Amino acid sequence: MVANRASVHFTFVPEFSPGLEGVVAAQTAVSEVDGANGRLIYRGGYLIEDLSPVVSFEEVAYLLWNGELPNKTQLDALCRQMSAARPLKDTARGTLMAMDPQTDLMDTLRTVVSAQGATKTLTKPTQEEAIALTAVFPSIVAAAYRRRQGKEIVEPRSDLTHAANLLWMMGDEEPPVERVHFLESYLVLLADHGLNASTFAARVIASTGSDLTSCVVGAIGALKGPAHGGATFAARTMLDKIGSADNAEKWLRDAHARHERFAGFGHRVYRTYDPRAKLLREMAKAAAPELHRTAARTEELALQILHESHPERPNATNVDFWASVVLTGAGIPKEMFTSLFATSRVAGWTAHVLESLADLRIIRPASVWTGPPPGKKPVPLASR
Amino acid sequence: MVANRASVHFTFVPEFSPGLEGVVAAQTAVSEVDGANGRLIYRGGYLIEDLSPVVSFEEVAYLLWNGELPNKTQLDALCRQMSAARPLKDTARGTLMAMDPQTDLMDTLRTVVSAQGATKTLTKPTQEEAIALTAVFPSIVAAAYRRRQGKEIVEPRSDLTHAANLLWMMGDEEPPVERVHFLESYLVLLADHGLNASTFAARVIASTGSDLTSCVVGAIGALKGPAHGGATFAARTMLDKIGSADNAEKWLRDAHARHERFAGFGHRVYRTYDPRAKLLREMAKAAAPELHRTAARTEELALQILHESHPERPNATNVDFWASVVLTGAGIPKEMFTSLFATSRVAGWTAHVLESLADLRIIRPASVWTGPPPGKKPVPLASR
Repeated sequence: MVANRASVHFTFVPEFSPGLEGVVAAQTAVSEVDGANGRLIYRGGYLIEDLSPVVSFEEVAYLLWNGELPNKTQLDALCRQMSAARPLKDTARGTLMAMDPQTDLMDTLRTVVSAQGATKTLTKPTQEEAIALTAVFPSIVAAAYRRRQGKEIVEPRSDLTHAANLLWMMGDEEPPVERVHFLESYLVLLADHGLNASTFAARVIASTGSDLTSCVVGAIGALKGPAHGGATFAARTMLDKIGSADNAEKWLRDAHARHERFAGFGHRVYRTYDPRAKLLREMAKAAAPELHRTAARTEELALQILHESHPERPNATNVDFWASVVLTGAGIPKEMFTSLFATSRVAGWTAHVLESLADLRIIRPASVWTGPPPGKKPVPLASR
Repeated sequence: MVANRASVHFTFVPEFSPGLEGVVAAQTAVSEVDGANGRLIYRGGYLIEDLSPVVSFEEVAYLLWNGELPNKTQLDALCRQMSAARPLKDTARGTLMAMDPQTDLMDTLRTVVSAQGATKTLTKPTQEEAIALTAVFPSIVAAAYRRRQGKEIVEPRSDLTHAANLLWMMGDEEPPVERVHFLESYLVLLADHGLNASTFAARVIASTGSDLTSCVVGAIGALKGPAHGGATFAARTMLDKIGSADNAEKWLRDAHARHERFAGFGHRVYRTYDPRAKLLREMAKAAAPELHRTAARTEELALQILHESHPERPNATNVDFWASVVLTGAGIPKEMFTSLFATSRVAGWTAHVLESLADLRIIRPASVWTGPPPGKKPVPLASR
């Protein structure tokens, strides 16, 4: 919530707000989701629609970590650091090779990141570590993807950007520039989003004084859930089931009659159209024309059906719906979607952890006891 | 907080409570920390001091998962399930072998648990998985410990209990019964503790619909921090520096003059003596007589010094202080302390996740924006 800090000190909240909805858990200058007005603000005060057309993922990561956009010298230095951190360490490579190639990509990512960041003694999170962890995500995701297909791992190239490297390591040839552009836009738009569940998980872990890898590994686990990062996969799966614009009405009416939720609609915070969804929608037609036709018709009808049955609810399209189309246009298969989300959001996770260090306090909430009153005496095993 | 649920609905809380102190984040019947009265209640309404003398770790885990203590048939079934789940899968073994033997044990545990629990498709948390994950912790911790020493890994035995297996796999001989007893008591006492930071991290991760391994891996990362699970190691390290009962006064007065915090004192929730610390203190003399002498004198003086400088503060000894003595008596070297804490608490983590499934709602709190007002226009890279 955007608030005048001097004037707002106390408010009346329910004792237990399920899911901590509306409960303030942090002060942050990394990003702000202004749900009422459909605005997403990145660090420094940039609206996402102003920022995304002019910056690369590397620039956004720099912004989230440092509070300002880099100049050419700073950006070059960052790119060199990321390039050096892209190869997997022996430990991480050995771990990847020990895993079943058909493992869920998020499980592989969780495990290999944990191995890549393992140290001999506890380290306090630093920006250098944030850069190194962010840099290695495409290498892990692409290597795991190629192993699934029984292909050799492709090494990163120092002459390519972060987004281009990901496509390069996935494929067998030079990635087409338009695909790199779609992927880049996706990575910029998803890089941070307030106190979403995975970022909050990272902050909870950081609050004990733990290391950055532990925070990132926990966040990967949170992102994996279908109510969070898994939603992009679900949106694409729904579009696959619908199959064509002509079939959208029948499919959606039938699904609605079965009380099935439409994937890609509704959000905890936004009460109007998600600005990221808007930007991705504009890009979707060029990215994947065929899928765009199905998606556009699906969106139109889904919003209509949802409005008919619950006119009081805000039910705008969320980022996952149009992200699934743009990622498809970037040449990303849907089983990689959640790990691509992680590849973007790791910039935000690490920025939040680094910010939280300035005033670290263990996050240890209270709970309400719903069990019986204390004092029941245990019966020894022999008498049970 | 123990509250009459029907009567308490609203309360006046500050808009932002750092560390979510006093903010209710869940309703739970798994355990309750009654800090005002120094009581810890386990599921079913058992006070920890009634429970711990009569139950094994396996029985407590069963209680936390099921809500009642097992009878002989139920306990035998659980022990068979745990026995079957104790060996490392090939993936986990390969991952362990890929890691530097000198890696922090918590980093190894985080990575190998992640590998052990990796699956091909997303699975909803089940009690069977909770049992399997809990069962495998001693195998990983002991194997990692032996690798550090350049020794062969020892396989678990089906005729030994959970606690005895841990000591068996660490050592080269049959574990002495008194050591097993001390370890068992520790494992029972630490198995759950309300919404502590690692348990809360597990619940945040579970709230997105993610899998149980992701929750446990995130919780391991949170526990690693020195403000949480790392505190037992810190307490033992302080006792090592003090060295003897005779040196306690000089060391503590000097440390206090340097404004150094005494490890093992103070807790967010308890306003009086931690009941677990009391039970462990009673056991400490028999467990490690020499270290007990130093610890007893240290406690006496530390409480005195803390009271002198801050008479208004509750500064009782916490569980970490006496746990460090009892674990020493159980034959556990201090570099394993945090991973032993995890070996106990995994029962609570998994019980909380399973409980949360009944009413799953994504944990996505709000934040307060402290950055500049939105609308700053980004300057293209060439002009920066």
